Amino acid sequence: MKAAIFSGPGAVEVGQRPDPVIQEPTDAIVRVVLGCVCGSDLWYYRGESPHAAGSIGHEFIGVVEQAGTGVRGVRVGDLVVAPFIYSDMSCPHCLNGSTISCPAGGNFGNGTIDGGQGEAVRVPLAGSTLVPVPGSAHSEAVLRSLLALSDVMSTGHHAATVAGVKKGDTVAVVGDGAVGLCAVLAARRLGAERIIALSRHAGRQQVAREFGATDIVAARGEEAVQAVLELTGGIGADAALECVGTEQSTATAFAIARPGSVVGIVGVPHGQPPFAQAFFRNVGWRGGPAPARIYIPDLLGEVIDGAINPGLVFDYETDLDHIADAYRAMDERRAIKSLVRVGTV
Amino acid sequence: MKAAIFSGPGAVEVGQRPDPVIQEPTDAIVRVVLGCVCGSDLWYYRGESPHAAGSIGHEFIGVVEQAGTGVRGVRVGDLVVAPFIYSDMSCPHCLNGSTISCPAGGNFGNGTIDGGQGEAVRVPLAGSTLVPVPGSAHSEAVLRSLLALSDVMSTGHHAATVAGVKKGDTVAVVGDGAVGLCAVLAARRLGAERIIALSRHAGRQQVAREFGATDIVAARGEEAVQAVLELTGGIGADAALECVGTEQSTATAFAIARPGSVVGIVGVPHGQPPFAQAFFRNVGWRGGPAPARIYIPDLLGEVIDGAINPGLVFDYETDLDHIADAYRAMDERRAIKSLVRVGTV
Repeated sequence: MKAAIFSGPGAVEVGQRPDPVIQEPTDAIVRVVLGCVCGSDLWYYRGESPHAAGSIGHEFIGVVEQAGTGVRGVRVGDLVVAPFIYSDMSCPHCLNGSTISCPAGGNFGNGTIDGGQGEAVRVPLAGSTLVPVPGSAHSEAVLRSLLALSDVMSTGHHAATVAGVKKGDTVAVVGDGAVGLCAVLAARRLGAERIIALSRHAGRQQVAREFGATDIVAARGEEAVQAVLELTGGIGADAALECVGTEQSTATAFAIARPGSVVGIVGVPHGQPPFAQAFFRNVGWRGGPAPARIYIPDLLGEVIDGAINPGLVFDYETDLDHIADAYRAMDERRAIKSLVRVGTV
Repeated sequence: MKAAIFSGPGAVEVGQRPDPVIQEPTDAIVRVVLGCVCGSDLWYYRGESPHAAGSIGHEFIGVVEQAGTGVRGVRVGDLVVAPFIYSDMSCPHCLNGSTISCPAGGNFGNGTIDGGQGEAVRVPLAGSTLVPVPGSAHSEAVLRSLLALSDVMSTGHHAATVAGVKKGDTVAVVGDGAVGLCAVLAARRLGAERIIALSRHAGRQQVAREFGATDIVAARGEEAVQAVLELTGGIGADAALECVGTEQSTATAFAIARPGSVVGIVGVPHGQPPFAQAFFRNVGWRGGPAPARIYIPDLLGEVIDGAINPGLVFDYETDLDHIADAYRAMDERRAIKSLVRVGTV
């Protein structure tokens, strides 16, 4: 089959991988309909984090083509959303809501396991991993939003959830990538009254507004901190959501979080937090890779109803043959997030 | 009046300070009955953190001797517990539960404001700071436990509270100082079913057992991590409470916390947390100086009823004239916590 192949920094090209086959009774083969490129793929693409050569991409929706004899919960023909990791949903970690730590689980697109940027994926633990989508004949907009549940919307929702966003809160979101924008949408969904988006790009500011941002701060660093403090009467945000992962963005998030609050961190950390300063302000942190499998069922209905439309983060589209363009568009910040059209429902 | 005077590392001696007088209508003068030495006083005593020369000590119970015309809530003659900071309880930070950040508040025993290690204290914002103790003729044991509410028991309770300890949890406590032992008691009070205390001193292990510890781990570092993982079937604790503040103890706390949990941190940080590793396990952190004023009213009744007895942490006693011995006993780890008897109720 055709699939994106990572061979080193800057080198993602369409290539060939073996057609996936059922290996375990709990496997399913999913024919990919839509895949996409993640902000975290750029860390590998830019050579800033290691990644094995081979399969890449961990977000996709598709149709179940084959199911092993042990698969329960999804059936051949189902349209499904894949969370970005697979998990058994029955171990203590999964039951505690931390699917990333499932000992039987793993990552899609890790070099060996198929990625979402390819024509098909062997999904291990398919019954406990894939989420079937009810109904049929979903609109293009709904399909794009379903794809966003695979990672970015679930991740933005994780930031807002672990930070404890609740009705009436003032929330500040650091980062205007797809995850940051989804965090704005998640905060609105959880009832935040005021949402301050830190964004300096007109196109992203517009999506942030559409997702519920009430205020935009275009400054960065100390200037951004002062701007948010001014907007909040010197108090700081009830929840700051860190959706970038650099040391500077982390410092900003901690500085704009009000005393006693929790910073929701979903940007992969590339630096240290201001630990002692945060301690004396009783500002904590929670976060990590989102337990998307746990969030998707809750978010799915709202996507189908059109109540939330996270698919708006996809502002660039191509196909597998042009996968290199999908990466370049994001690397050069021409695109918020690149969608890769692979098949049809 | 007689009071402990800090003049530099290793140098705490009894000396003279001016008798405190009402300066603001919201001040009260409290005649100290019992004071004590805090583990955090040792950071200054050992020269590991700076502290202004002058007054020292931030934990005391006493009797209100004079009250300014603006003081509401406490009256002359009341036995009161002082939280270790004063605060107005009406600003946004106090209302959000973060009294440490009260702009009108401050620390006792900071060199200038009287400390609890002296015959009397001018308490600013007395009405919103001091907590009157109902009833009279309290036993010596109750008085000692009331003193523990001033800081260590409230701080242990803070660790357990911010870590979200709940009924049935397995909790691990790093640190067998007075705060760590109180964290054991707080975890039991919140319903923890299993409490693993990391302690290598027989006397402290005994108090930990009395406070509710079900398991003792005497090892440190990697060996302690392995021991706790073994005790928890490889899962880790539902909540790890960090009550020391060194980089090693912090690393231990994060390593024994199960994926998805929160480390409750009340040891003043002297190092960095393992940020990236914690992120990938979705282990967060919350904590800081405890909002003791908020916790004391809840804990007070249980102390008076004898349901909790945090005063057991005081295993050394002296008077103001021998304040230097009180510090030495703790510095040399001969004492868990030194009580300083100053007056009578």
